[in-house]
Amino acid sequence: MKVRVFDTTLRDGEQTPGISLSPDQKLSIAKKLDELGVDAIEAGFPVISKGEQNAIKMITKANLKSEICGLARTNKKDIDAAVDSGLNYIHTFIATSDIHLEYKLKMTREQALEKAIDAVEYGKSRGLQVEFSAEDATRTDREFLKKVFGEVAKAGADRIDIPDTVGYSTPEYISQITKDAVDATHLPISVHCHNDFGLAVANALAGIHAGAECAHVTINGIGERAGNASLEEFVMALQCLPYEEKYETNINTKLLYDTSRFVSKIVGIQVQPNKAIVGENAFGHESGIHTHGVLSNPLTYEPISPELVGRKRWLQVGKHAGIHGMNAMLDEYGVKPTQEQAKEILEKVKSLGDQGKQVTDVELLSIASDILKEQGVKRIVQLTGFSVSTGIGTMPYAFVKLNIDGQELSATDYGVGPVDAALNAIQKVTGKIAEVRIKDYGLASISGGSTALCEVTIRVEDAQGNHVSAKSIGEDIVTTSVQAVIAGINRLMLKKMLKEKQIGN
Amino acid sequence: MKVRVFDTTLRDGEQTPGISLSPDQKLSIAKKLDELGVDAIEAGFPVISKGEQNAIKMITKANLKSEICGLARTNKKDIDAAVDSGLNYIHTFIATSDIHLEYKLKMTREQALEKAIDAVEYGKSRGLQVEFSAEDATRTDREFLKKVFGEVAKAGADRIDIPDTVGYSTPEYISQITKDAVDATHLPISVHCHNDFGLAVANALAGIHAGAECAHVTINGIGERAGNASLEEFVMALQCLPYEEKYETNINTKLLYDTSRFVSKIVGIQVQPNKAIVGENAFGHESGIHTHGVLSNPLTYEPISPELVGRKRWLQVGKHAGIHGMNAMLDEYGVKPTQEQAKEILEKVKSLGDQGKQVTDVELLSIASDILKEQGVKRIVQLTGFSVSTGIGTMPYAFVKLNIDGQELSATDYGVGPVDAALNAIQKVTGKIAEVRIKDYGLASISGGSTALCEVTIRVEDAQGNHVSAKSIGEDIVTTSVQAVIAGINRLMLKKMLKEKQIGN
Repeated sequence: MKVRVFDTTLRDGEQTPGISLSPDQKLSIAKKLDELGVDAIEAGFPVISKGEQNAIKMITKANLKSEICGLARTNKKDIDAAVDSGLNYIHTFIATSDIHLEYKLKMTREQALEKAIDAVEYGKSRGLQVEFSAEDATRTDREFLKKVFGEVAKAGADRIDIPDTVGYSTPEYISQITKDAVDATHLPISVHCHNDFGLAVANALAGIHAGAECAHVTINGIGERAGNASLEEFVMALQCLPYEEKYETNINTKLLYDTSRFVSKIVGIQVQPNKAIVGENAFGHESGIHTHGVLSNPLTYEPISPELVGRKRWLQVGKHAGIHGMNAMLDEYGVKPTQEQAKEILEKVKSLGDQGKQVTDVELLSIASDILKEQGVKRIVQLTGFSVSTGIGTMPYAFVKLNIDGQELSATDYGVGPVDAALNAIQKVTGKIAEVRIKDYGLASISGGSTALCEVTIRVEDAQGNHVSAKSIGEDIVTTSVQAVIAGINRLMLKKMLKEKQIGN
Repeated sequence: MKVRVFDTTLRDGEQTPGISLSPDQKLSIAKKLDELGVDAIEAGFPVISKGEQNAIKMITKANLKSEICGLARTNKKDIDAAVDSGLNYIHTFIATSDIHLEYKLKMTREQALEKAIDAVEYGKSRGLQVEFSAEDATRTDREFLKKVFGEVAKAGADRIDIPDTVGYSTPEYISQITKDAVDATHLPISVHCHNDFGLAVANALAGIHAGAECAHVTINGIGERAGNASLEEFVMALQCLPYEEKYETNINTKLLYDTSRFVSKIVGIQVQPNKAIVGENAFGHESGIHTHGVLSNPLTYEPISPELVGRKRWLQVGKHAGIHGMNAMLDEYGVKPTQEQAKEILEKVKSLGDQGKQVTDVELLSIASDILKEQGVKRIVQLTGFSVSTGIGTMPYAFVKLNIDGQELSATDYGVGPVDAALNAIQKVTGKIAEVRIKDYGLASISGGSTALCEVTIRVEDAQGNHVSAKSIGEDIVTTSVQAVIAGINRLMLKKMLKEKQIGN
């Protein structure tokens, strides 16, 4: 069965507190969603502002393959604003639960039903495709909900949506009311599930299994409060889980990771590392048992291949490491210890882990090199002197002194910020030896206060496209950042060097 | 029905790539979990390292109310290591799916079954409570799984666990095999669900509904890859969703948010804002329709009261704002615009939102003050001069010049980092006028590279316990941080001032 994907990143997603998108940003996300293959894009809520209307106009004119929809309350003003924005498809809604009727709308059930019918009729009279939502459907009296759906269907609605507005439904209940909606209307049904109890995706899937043909979803599951069902989880579950019926969507799953990062950067909402499908750790392995399994057959500890969603698997060592995973990582750098040596390396890795330390591959290589008595793995570039100034009314400028293979070299430069200034000065010294570019620069404060520790994670790339990550922790954000850059340069040079000469026996 | 909560934050959670905890850190988390009320704590995997054994010894000696459990493969060495760590409860496991048997264990089904039986018997002979897991149960041949469970029960196992090792199960399937396990063993059943498709919580709940009495969960859902079922979502769903049967746990839900933050800081894994129950936005509202609803009755847009999980609701304005929410926010500061004035303020707020800008309450108050022609709301402290130096072999030191109500004042000071140095200098000038402390200091890089924009979010508190948040965006992390501090000081002073004299009509 083909399932329709209705993306509401630009409407419910943008209603996330703290997100405000300019028309250009909305257009860039709409294009990305279209490329991803979503069937419909809810581009916004036209009546709320002039900028919103401009954004929607730009999107409707962009010749996208996806259908473009806009939100409207059940009144003429909202529907007219949608038409004025160039839309021919609206999603109109009115609350039907007693709590919303009594406290928010101050209406009777009958009044709400009448408004719903009027809006659908008015939308149709203006030539629109009309999708009708009974807001807070899952807390609405079940018989009244059936009646509302039946009446709006008679009034000409093209599609019916069932919103679980506060994420209060169970999969069982949304199944039941989806079946009610199918029976009462014989129209295509959508479900719109919120994640307040972590059940948005399960509820969306339950809706589909019960006869809905579409779900409203967002990239990274953003949206009001705990957000909506996440597009990437919904689509991958439909396509990969062992259901009796086979489900398909029009999504190009290889673009999922890229789309997730794109949206995350524009809206400024981070994706947690343990998020399914698109989180940083979704295809990362550390424990010995898991890395061993993945090395013998990735499917032992991965339900799907990471390439399917545009990603790569990665391994890491630490206190849970085993010999197999560690040897596989060393092997990547051409390091091949004997069984005895491997045991000794692993013990050192675990003892670092026991101290609460993360073991990066540079540390692993440096431990390996000590034990293999190899001269190849050592710190190549050392920062021996560093000073930087910045402020208001000045350009940030820096002085650096580096020791490169025993030779001391200094330079000064300026930049847009103190880290940029320091990097520019470093580049003057290292020049062609280590021409690097910072690809990603992540800062996190580990504890509160101005004396807090901060953690800098940096991704560095050289001219040949090699890239490595490095991390540094300290109290001074600038010095810590520069130390992370130096660590990144060393890892990059190490990686290149080790690829050339194979060390070990 | 009382549901048992088995927390594996310290075992599966610690297996998250990148997390390594010291024994002291593990003990501090175990105490926090005990306070929260979990029934069992899986404290670690004793055999993996000496530090792990020390940590478990410390935890077993800490006199906690929770039962303490440790992981062991089905061999004597692992089980002995558990006994040596002071444990009297083990969780022993062996994989039973064909893919794990063929590629990882290189064993037949019969060999695996025999190892399982031997381990259970050995564990019992050492006087342990034994919980047995059939790893990758959800991809194991269903008849073989029943047989394994039946045989280990005969061998004396006390509890059976069903792990959905790669998060591949549907709620329907985990229901079925939970019933199988109950029928085959008549023992207490647990489910251990992974989140690879976003279904961990739904699957854990399905297990409970089908007769399991316990779920393995982690704080914030951390764990291998996309993590485990999150404790907070599982517990709140059980207690709050409209199931026919009533479920209870021993969790003190008011401690959920605090525990989530505590674990997040120690393990260094951030919680995304749109995470259910404990995410920053789970009880935040911005859009006009939602804030209006929440102001008339919070239950319109909140399935549970935030206080139930130790939190508070918050509102914010932006391009989706409505008159009701905005007036409620202004009212907090004693600002009461007329209907005409309110409309004008809202229009300005929306036009800022259309430019992609977030509207904080200082901006809102400053717009309100312009329109109400009030003199009360203005920038009190201005940073007119600033310079800071840092590096290696020096203490970071700063110079600041501030304009406070027309008067220019300067100072210098040093600190552990450039921001700390600047703050110390600022405090010398502002002294008793604005004695502030930075409570939280968050940094995020918005785009990649050393010339990237960074976003600094700061929470500032004064001696009376008033606190505000402020945000600043710029290319220079140090200057941007200092500007956020100044914004914070201004907001704090504004808040105090407005509380004293009520402005507006």
